[in-house]
Amino acid sequence: MGVMSEAVTQFLIPACSLLGIAFALLQWFLVSRVPVSADAGGFRGYHGRLTEQDLEDGDEGDDLDSIIKCAEIQSAISVGATSFLFTQYKYLSIFMGAFGLIIFLFLGSVKGFSTTSEPCTYNPEALCKPALANAVFSTLAFLLGALTSTLSGFLGMKIATYANARTTLEARKGVGKAFIAAFRSGAVMGFLLAANGLLVLYASINLFKLYYGDDWEGLYESITGYGLGGSSMALFGRVGGGIYTKAADVGADLVGKVEKNIPEDDPRNPAVIADNVGDNVGDIAGMGSDLFGSYAESSCAALFVASISSFGNTHDFTAMSYPLIISSMGIVVCLITTLFATNLSEIKQVKEIEPSLKQQLLISTILMTAGVAMVTFFALPSEFTLFNFGTNKSVKNWHLFFCVVIGLWAGLVIGYTTEYYTSNAYSPVRDVADSCRTGAATNVIFGLALGYKSVIIPIFAIAVSIYVSFSLAAMYGVSVAALGMLSTIATGLAIDAYGPISDNAGGIAEMAGMSHKIRERTDALDAAGNTTAAIGKGFAIGSAALVSLALFGAFVSRAGINTVDVLTPKVFIGLIVGAMLPYWFSAMTMKSVGSAALKMVEEVRRQFNTIPGLMEGTAKPDYANCVKISTDASLREMIPPGALVMLTPLIAGTLFGVETLAGVLAGSLVSGVQVAISASNTGGAWDNAKKYIEAGCNEHAKALGPKGSDAHKAAVIGDTIGDPLKDTSGPALNILIKLMAVESLVFAPFFAAHGGLLFKLL
Amino acid sequence: MGVMSEAVTQFLIPACSLLGIAFALLQWFLVSRVPVSADAGGFRGYHGRLTEQDLEDGDEGDDLDSIIKCAEIQSAISVGATSFLFTQYKYLSIFMGAFGLIIFLFLGSVKGFSTTSEPCTYNPEALCKPALANAVFSTLAFLLGALTSTLSGFLGMKIATYANARTTLEARKGVGKAFIAAFRSGAVMGFLLAANGLLVLYASINLFKLYYGDDWEGLYESITGYGLGGSSMALFGRVGGGIYTKAADVGADLVGKVEKNIPEDDPRNPAVIADNVGDNVGDIAGMGSDLFGSYAESSCAALFVASISSFGNTHDFTAMSYPLIISSMGIVVCLITTLFATNLSEIKQVKEIEPSLKQQLLISTILMTAGVAMVTFFALPSEFTLFNFGTNKSVKNWHLFFCVVIGLWAGLVIGYTTEYYTSNAYSPVRDVADSCRTGAATNVIFGLALGYKSVIIPIFAIAVSIYVSFSLAAMYGVSVAALGMLSTIATGLAIDAYGPISDNAGGIAEMAGMSHKIRERTDALDAAGNTTAAIGKGFAIGSAALVSLALFGAFVSRAGINTVDVLTPKVFIGLIVGAMLPYWFSAMTMKSVGSAALKMVEEVRRQFNTIPGLMEGTAKPDYANCVKISTDASLREMIPPGALVMLTPLIAGTLFGVETLAGVLAGSLVSGVQVAISASNTGGAWDNAKKYIEAGCNEHAKALGPKGSDAHKAAVIGDTIGDPLKDTSGPALNILIKLMAVESLVFAPFFAAHGGLLFKLL
Repeated sequence: MGVMSEAVTQFLIPACSLLGIAFALLQWFLVSRVPVSADAGGFRGYHGRLTEQDLEDGDEGDDLDSIIKCAEIQSAISVGATSFLFTQYKYLSIFMGAFGLIIFLFLGSVKGFSTTSEPCTYNPEALCKPALANAVFSTLAFLLGALTSTLSGFLGMKIATYANARTTLEARKGVGKAFIAAFRSGAVMGFLLAANGLLVLYASINLFKLYYGDDWEGLYESITGYGLGGSSMALFGRVGGGIYTKAADVGADLVGKVEKNIPEDDPRNPAVIADNVGDNVGDIAGMGSDLFGSYAESSCAALFVASISSFGNTHDFTAMSYPLIISSMGIVVCLITTLFATNLSEIKQVKEIEPSLKQQLLISTILMTAGVAMVTFFALPSEFTLFNFGTNKSVKNWHLFFCVVIGLWAGLVIGYTTEYYTSNAYSPVRDVADSCRTGAATNVIFGLALGYKSVIIPIFAIAVSIYVSFSLAAMYGVSVAALGMLSTIATGLAIDAYGPISDNAGGIAEMAGMSHKIRERTDALDAAGNTTAAIGKGFAIGSAALVSLALFGAFVSRAGINTVDVLTPKVFIGLIVGAMLPYWFSAMTMKSVGSAALKMVEEVRRQFNTIPGLMEGTAKPDYANCVKISTDASLREMIPPGALVMLTPLIAGTLFGVETLAGVLAGSLVSGVQVAISASNTGGAWDNAKKYIEAGCNEHAKALGPKGSDAHKAAVIGDTIGDPLKDTSGPALNILIKLMAVESLVFAPFFAAHGGLLFKLL
Repeated sequence: MGVMSEAVTQFLIPACSLLGIAFALLQWFLVSRVPVSADAGGFRGYHGRLTEQDLEDGDEGDDLDSIIKCAEIQSAISVGATSFLFTQYKYLSIFMGAFGLIIFLFLGSVKGFSTTSEPCTYNPEALCKPALANAVFSTLAFLLGALTSTLSGFLGMKIATYANARTTLEARKGVGKAFIAAFRSGAVMGFLLAANGLLVLYASINLFKLYYGDDWEGLYESITGYGLGGSSMALFGRVGGGIYTKAADVGADLVGKVEKNIPEDDPRNPAVIADNVGDNVGDIAGMGSDLFGSYAESSCAALFVASISSFGNTHDFTAMSYPLIISSMGIVVCLITTLFATNLSEIKQVKEIEPSLKQQLLISTILMTAGVAMVTFFALPSEFTLFNFGTNKSVKNWHLFFCVVIGLWAGLVIGYTTEYYTSNAYSPVRDVADSCRTGAATNVIFGLALGYKSVIIPIFAIAVSIYVSFSLAAMYGVSVAALGMLSTIATGLAIDAYGPISDNAGGIAEMAGMSHKIRERTDALDAAGNTTAAIGKGFAIGSAALVSLALFGAFVSRAGINTVDVLTPKVFIGLIVGAMLPYWFSAMTMKSVGSAALKMVEEVRRQFNTIPGLMEGTAKPDYANCVKISTDASLREMIPPGALVMLTPLIAGTLFGVETLAGVLAGSLVSGVQVAISASNTGGAWDNAKKYIEAGCNEHAKALGPKGSDAHKAAVIGDTIGDPLKDTSGPALNILIKLMAVESLVFAPFFAAHGGLLFKLL
């Protein structure tokens, strides 16, 4: 037994969760002190507080008009995003109901809906709850996961739309204040999400235990439904949100920037509101659901594998809760880390933004390393055995320390590599920008090559963590390595969400007609945001790879097979078809964005052609029509890729059996990781190559620019191509690999009992 | 025992090879009857033969000047290509010598260069030749394979540069005559290569047998060196040639088409000769080496697996030679098929070209199915056992029939799917063309999506063939399925080589200033050629997937492991790193093309700026400088990707051992196939979308065109991006996966004896 008693554990986990929530609320309160309201009185008061000292040299305290405009635009974005998410959730609730029923029916049918208890699978001497209970509780966990994921995405969106205009207004006081506003808002989201996810999971376990009692195998089997629910919603959130945002973005850019030669986010562009709404529903809500899904799945995978370990068998609750305690420690560590950015240092210059965000990653990783050591020695028994595909593996607690820490540091390596390849402070992006001299074609060739190249180091980092954690502690090691990478999720999400918030802040500044200086500041925040968004995606995909492998291992264990031999036809065909799925999926999502963007272009052109005075700024465009096009496209087009991901495991498992399905999971994992990383980084690099030319911060950049030069036009084309790669297909792919794995895990008993119909028939 | 006696087999194989060579020479003779020489007398005589009936309505019999120009240009291209290949071969011969030494040292060291015979691995009762003999003969086979591959590529280039001007001149008489000239020349290459490859392999086996006698295990182990030699040369041929051709092509297009607004292949463009030389060294010589490599490897894999089967043990030479007899039958079938295109039907209209080429595939596949049935029943015993990873599998001869035939028909399915996705007669390419309306960005997005989507059906076709052949006859089944797909290689190569020949013919027509009508005809031939080139690449990658799996299986057998379990850390890290290699490799090759193209652009711009009268056509450009840039870039830049591929198996096997290496092979196979197919098809589609707009063959296309319209400019950008994808990185990837597999197979005894150093140390 470890040092910590069950009572301490039962206190610590909810306490840390509540601390996280409290901290998030505090940050929210601090952000809310920047007043934004159409009530001019409030503004006057606030305006009054903006003294000479507050403003940097040469700043004008923008006039009341533009502040009221900010408030109006913010409200329009917020209303648009809320209305889209509600529509999306309406459709998804039907899907969730239907899929919940499928879970119930499939799992219930494993033993013919019998209500008699059965001997446990891994500990046949004990008696476990009937399969029907598994069906009921898995469905329940699935719905809880889906709900929590929805809530995470929705809250994230609310916070982001609450913060964007405030960031714009703070930009008047200087880049440092604006940074703090955007970063705090990101932190609200990060902490709420991490704490909320942990709390709901913890509560569910304790509630389920009321029924399951000592049958921990059954308890943690049904808890895996939580991960499935979280990831299912994340899939639709990412895909739907991704199509929404990029249809609007690409459509707006193609007519606005390329044809009409008006700036990005110009209020005359009819698609501009849809574009800004899209950032919030795609990059914020989608990403929130995604990382929540990763977190839920890695916890569930770890818990499931732990339940069949020696401390699972002896019912050592503290050791069982090791994954949850790591997450609790993560919240505390991230809380301290956040203070470094918000209270202990101050950003004075544009060039300090990126280092400051990078520092966040480093600080949280170092602190967490110490935290993990503490948790490991207090919570785990010094020696125990883990289930390892039919055999038992003896493991020491310090092995687990290395597993978590290697995941944690691999995350940092992936983050830093991503930064190197997507930030315009380094040569890769500058080379891409340079290639714009000879036009869009070379820009695209160099950008694609950069994306491919950026895969190398992350893959080696993932491979090393897998090798170490797998060798030390089998699948449990891999799942806690994933948790290690995600343990600093609150900080990761904070710097990730910071990106779209800054992007929106810039958009609002432009639309409200604020001064060039302010737009320059928000642009600088946004450029750093592109990089941090890419870092966030790097974390998401790196952890997804580890999580999927852990889920895959759990699935194989639960399905009762002990080897997945590539040298059998059943497995090999699964492997090669699985490796194809990311391509099929990307083809669907990219085509969807392309088609929706074409429709958007036509609508925007139509408005410019038919609304008199639009180009001159005397008439208002019809924003709502563009919002409608994005909404319709997103809701319609998210179904086929969603169906592909959700149905593949069911079809493969039912018709071809667990071995082929295992092949499919391994294939989609090893192939999808590459496509996802390269897509995200290529897109990020193109975006920042464009920003590099626009900012003209050195001789080289000035020679390529300014805005409107041939090189800049070529860079805009690259940026537009990168949009669906980095914000639709790329990030959705990590959900693809995780979701198929967790779905297979949930349905494993069914496949083991009734799967492989086609081969049985032949 | 089968029906055919050894004597018949020993007669049939060389007889069919010689028949193929004779047929190739006949075709060459027929092509050579179109006189092209700077000797005006000859022209006059020829010109005299061009009667009114020969010329279609409204044709002008172009003047003598342009004919002399054709001859000059052809000679310039031929001289350039020959000189490049000689330079390349000079470097490669050093590499071949060095790598031959590595093979000798590694394999010799397995048993410490001992010269005493050892008990055989699979039949321990028999005595096998010493490991040193394996080292010597493997090295010898390697050098023979490299030499044959070089010869294949070189002859292909010679034929192509001999045929291109002749095709141009025949185009004056109508599209049908030009088609026949190009197609016959393609056939010369196809038959020479297929027959030559078979003959050398057959001769080597018989020669090696003089020493090996009854030790067939040793004999066919060392023969695998032939495949390694073939593929090593192919790798450098593909990569070097690919960089050469695309640096020139991209560079020429970027300045010529985009900046200077002069047509493709305009003689004023300084890079135009380099571009045309490139087609011959890349698309022709490189592709010839590539398909020869596939053929050699699948034969070697099949022979090696057969040598440890029951008929291998009983020394049934006819059954052992089954793979060679299939290839012999393939030559006969292709010969008959060719007659359909050249003698039994005639092309009268442009729109008949593609169907006629498609028909070739269909006819050869149908005939070959009957041929395979014959061969199978005559050559194989009715029942026998095959080695299947430690166990013996009982197999009937008709099982083998299904294995070969499923590979054959899967090839057809892949070919037809490729045609659907890359021909501008169908909606996918038309959709891509349509997306050019909104600019280059949507064109690229749609094109990438098309490439991703085009992967689906080929992968299912490959998966089905693997499942069937693997289930029926283990790895022997997979290797003969690969041979089945390649059995019609002569026809496949004929229609593949037809593409670059037509492309060159068009270039020559433009440079010689021939009439618009003739250029239109050669363009039509070329558009069909883009599709057939994509089909050829589809065959190459499909067969590469099967071959690699077979080689992989042979490697695993030879290395003495019986399972490759994904659920072990050693294998899994191999899998994920292996899946990354195609990206690393593509990053290198694409960046190389990009950088070389930038240099080319600068040189072309420099010439336009500094040579007075160049733009007006009164001064000649300095073609040689552009040729030099391509040559230097190609020779320098082919080394890193080549080293990546050649060193990976050596490093993985030596440091991490056979299991990790097995993972690497499986990972690179399942991931590389997808990247290769999508890259080839995306590139082919962009090229044909551009041609669709240029040709303006219907209302839709006319609305997008004409040349120089915004949509056309967007299409040109897509085409340029597609160049390195479809002609450099894409097709080189199938060599990557094959070559790593065959190299692992050759070095397997070394890895089994001394591999895994790193894990042994830890």
